[in-house]
Amino acid sequence: MQLLDGKKTAQSILNTLKIDVAQRATAGKKVPHLAAILVGTDGASQTYVASKVRTCREIGFRSTLIEFENDISEVRLLEKIEELNENMDVDGILVQLPLPAHIEEKKVIETIIPTKDVDGFHPENIGRMIMGEADAFIPATPYGIMLLLEYNKVATAGKHAVIIGRSHIVGRPMSILLSNNSNPGNCTVTLCHSKTKNISEICLSADIIVAALGSPGFVTEDMVKEGAVVIDVGITRIEDKTRKSGYRLAGDVDFKNVAPKCSYITPVPGGVGPMTIAALMKNTFKACVERN
Amino acid sequence: MQLLDGKKTAQSILNTLKIDVAQRATAGKKVPHLAAILVGTDGASQTYVASKVRTCREIGFRSTLIEFENDISEVRLLEKIEELNENMDVDGILVQLPLPAHIEEKKVIETIIPTKDVDGFHPENIGRMIMGEADAFIPATPYGIMLLLEYNKVATAGKHAVIIGRSHIVGRPMSILLSNNSNPGNCTVTLCHSKTKNISEICLSADIIVAALGSPGFVTEDMVKEGAVVIDVGITRIEDKTRKSGYRLAGDVDFKNVAPKCSYITPVPGGVGPMTIAALMKNTFKACVERN
Repeated sequence: MQLLDGKKTAQSILNTLKIDVAQRATAGKKVPHLAAILVGTDGASQTYVASKVRTCREIGFRSTLIEFENDISEVRLLEKIEELNENMDVDGILVQLPLPAHIEEKKVIETIIPTKDVDGFHPENIGRMIMGEADAFIPATPYGIMLLLEYNKVATAGKHAVIIGRSHIVGRPMSILLSNNSNPGNCTVTLCHSKTKNISEICLSADIIVAALGSPGFVTEDMVKEGAVVIDVGITRIEDKTRKSGYRLAGDVDFKNVAPKCSYITPVPGGVGPMTIAALMKNTFKACVERN
Repeated sequence: MQLLDGKKTAQSILNTLKIDVAQRATAGKKVPHLAAILVGTDGASQTYVASKVRTCREIGFRSTLIEFENDISEVRLLEKIEELNENMDVDGILVQLPLPAHIEEKKVIETIIPTKDVDGFHPENIGRMIMGEADAFIPATPYGIMLLLEYNKVATAGKHAVIIGRSHIVGRPMSILLSNNSNPGNCTVTLCHSKTKNISEICLSADIIVAALGSPGFVTEDMVKEGAVVIDVGITRIEDKTRKSGYRLAGDVDFKNVAPKCSYITPVPGGVGPMTIAALMKNTFKACVERN
């Protein structure tokens, strides 16, 4: 069993980006600038945004963090996005999700100009991803997983990949990316979800399993065949009074019992999570290069 | 075995559209107007476009057919599309594919304004389809298949659908539509393609097979389980000197031997083909209603 170490892989990607940015700066070229919008005071959202801003700083990107109260009006938020769309210095815009119920996420996502949509959630970028177009921004989590497979030279062509979960953010794009005619890619992909019958049996036939349903410990030992590759996207906060933070993070895979059967497996935390941030930074760098 | 009669289903959809259009006309509202662009003299393309224009006439839509020589410049074609984008009377624009090699299809498709893109090929419409948004134009062939399943009340939820072929026009969108949380939909979907191993075995586990690879007679009796639903999207012209036209149309399924095992199956011709045109008309009607 080999661990797919997201922390290490992400660090290697970030190191390369840091060098690339320094070279741009030396050459008098613009360095990437990410603008992040955070609405409200949700703990997890604050942690994620802080980590993105910190990573920007570490690799020499500029960043702007814009924080709004929970009761900000939709109109005001959209105005701010328009302003960032027009701001020539800003290369990438991200709005941390989820948003409060009175704000329509779809409207927010579609207000971000596609060329600065580094989260890759705009319908135009999703469409381009499907077409396999190189200029698409791929959503950060699926892109991070593809980078993890690529950097660790995990063979995918002709393999049977089973994706659990059909969210727009992870499961659906993963099903597309893994079945595209590319490397990594060229898998035969089965997409499973809440309406799927005999999911254990389907998983047992998988060479690659991507678990992205957000149900701690869902994938158990009896669902995984010997030698499978297991990617665990789940990251649920579970109350744990023995921890200083008061919680621990749980993946969708019963790691302890599944890992011994795998050829490769991602840990939680330290697997997909750090890769998501590395992918976001790569998207921001690309936005900067393409815009300038 | 029950035949999924595309000709009959399409006619029923077109009859309804005809009534709807007549009602709009009586109420003094705008009737739908489809503009079709045909480049060159390819026989199949001429037949398809002629059939679309004829259907428009039959149900009371306006239509404009614009024909260009094979050597038209890309610039000139794009100018024409821009003109149609701005023409307030035109509701839907379609450019018959394939185009000559000197014209970039991607550029042509992306020049059509998404609100008039009744073929549903613009990345923005593809992205919206993935998000399950009601305002998306779904590409005509996959939309036609979904309508065929819906009108014939074929149960899909929880079924295992196997799609053969990952084209942007049929296979890929079918894999998305059948796995979306909708009805028809909610299938567990496996997408197969040229890199798939053991395709016979995968097909044998399918409740629903959608064959869209363009290889006559590819799906044989031994690949289909008893009671399966089989949708044949293939439509290849095969030389046949016994026919007046000089050719016959062949599907991807060995109909004669497969049909007896099926609960439902589409014939070729007369299955998916007519549904594609009905779906295009529905998209054009929708474009007209939404624009006015």
